[in-house]
Amino acid sequence: MWRINCTSVNEPTGVYLGIFLELLSKSGSAKARFEAFLTRKDGEPSLVSAKRTGVHLFHRNNDQFGWPQFVKVMDLATDFVRDGVITFLCSIMVWHHSGGIPVPPSDIGENLGMLLDSTDGADVSFAIDGETFHAHRAVLAARSPVFRAELLGSMAEATMPSITLLDIAPETFIVLLRFMYTDAFPGDDELGDSSSKMLQNLLAAADRYGLDRLKLICAHKLWGAMSVDTVADVLACAEMYSCPELRDKCIDFVVADKNFKRVALSEGFMQLGQNFPSIIAEVRSRVGT
Amino acid sequence: MWRINCTSVNEPTGVYLGIFLELLSKSGSAKARFEAFLTRKDGEPSLVSAKRTGVHLFHRNNDQFGWPQFVKVMDLATDFVRDGVITFLCSIMVWHHSGGIPVPPSDIGENLGMLLDSTDGADVSFAIDGETFHAHRAVLAARSPVFRAELLGSMAEATMPSITLLDIAPETFIVLLRFMYTDAFPGDDELGDSSSKMLQNLLAAADRYGLDRLKLICAHKLWGAMSVDTVADVLACAEMYSCPELRDKCIDFVVADKNFKRVALSEGFMQLGQNFPSIIAEVRSRVGT
Repeated sequence: MWRINCTSVNEPTGVYLGIFLELLSKSGSAKARFEAFLTRKDGEPSLVSAKRTGVHLFHRNNDQFGWPQFVKVMDLATDFVRDGVITFLCSIMVWHHSGGIPVPPSDIGENLGMLLDSTDGADVSFAIDGETFHAHRAVLAARSPVFRAELLGSMAEATMPSITLLDIAPETFIVLLRFMYTDAFPGDDELGDSSSKMLQNLLAAADRYGLDRLKLICAHKLWGAMSVDTVADVLACAEMYSCPELRDKCIDFVVADKNFKRVALSEGFMQLGQNFPSIIAEVRSRVGT
Repeated sequence: MWRINCTSVNEPTGVYLGIFLELLSKSGSAKARFEAFLTRKDGEPSLVSAKRTGVHLFHRNNDQFGWPQFVKVMDLATDFVRDGVITFLCSIMVWHHSGGIPVPPSDIGENLGMLLDSTDGADVSFAIDGETFHAHRAVLAARSPVFRAELLGSMAEATMPSITLLDIAPETFIVLLRFMYTDAFPGDDELGDSSSKMLQNLLAAADRYGLDRLKLICAHKLWGAMSVDTVADVLACAEMYSCPELRDKCIDFVVADKNFKRVALSEGFMQLGQNFPSIIAEVRSRVGT
């Protein structure tokens, strides 16, 4: 395991920030190259600030390597402080002993995905809109606090072999179920044509079942594909299903000068105003009317 | 997803190998810096061969960037070909849109680890040497083909609520069980003082339960800590529990000039000779007697 340490040191010429890479290992040494640089105010990497080590052999027992005087604190304010924060970007390139025995990557998601596909040992099923889905209580309970309460607690579902779900579409449940088993999200191609709608449905389902990471994946993807045509719907979804990260981004998007006129006059936004007056109040205070 | 492409191009000045980084995405673009270099014959990185791009914006739809003439084929033989193979080392540094919604890393192992700790919904238990361990059939069946056959098949264990295991120590089973739930391996500190013995026991258990990845992790760690004092035991373990990757490395280690004399005269090696004459035959043919 590696740790990045940031230090500050007082020199006659001023205060400097230092940055170091440290190997946290009691047993093995490792060869690595470390590179660090700062992010400019505009969010772009500042390649002129970059420093990189050669290939350094890090010994066991917390050997560290880097620069005690990476940057002078005085020089930070003009170019690098954004919202009171400076951001370092670091890369670590580690040499694996070419003579070692390679270890394949984690396959727990793949293993559970195969269990889902086989339905071997399934001990619960879900009936949705005429379709039946088989699953394993232990996996659902591990992944979702809501399923845990429903399937292992004292609720009626805990002893029912088949549970009927009314508040979710089969195609949404398929993605939800596979995500719970594999932690994998389908590719953009597999989400179908109306992927924004699908992502909104999934976000709602993730909220319903307490799958926080899935919710943020949906939010991340909805934000990545944001447009003046979708923002009102997405904002309503974020508000309704408690996703403050996405809600705030949507409001930023709406109030941005280049978007505001087109969004404000869209049908979706009018509807949003009717259903969520508090959002309109927030937009109003942001645009300063 | 990224792909690294290697090309060859015929120029008046000779044949060149090219290397390119390609973004495989139908939806998003991404900013990245790509660096590539060759590995020297002795396995060390050749920093003089290194080339790196600036920060390049890769557009959706398979945009690629790199060097059509990375290296002249004629120049490879002297410095870079090892066992008929050349090895490129590449690093890709990707800029995440600082304005995006961050997605936390996969937590499926953590979730299952918490299920193991809570024992909620456990439907099987193991009795080992007076200790009892609770577990979930679905998880064990997903991870181990042997548990799958035992727990979900037609064997007697499939209906037994408690299973007695005689061929494994409790401390080994604890690590095995946690690995099945979390895909995580304990730190070197947690393995105890005689970690080589523990790793050998774990490798044996991984073989018994068909946990191939765990077996390779044990092999990787045993190889990383290999010494003239441990190699005979480790070689016997690799032979007995069918780990050819580790077995071959051990034999390489034994026949190396700097180790051979000390290993050949050790007590462990004498014992190995008695139990596994085929290994001695292989060592004999390798040292050319």
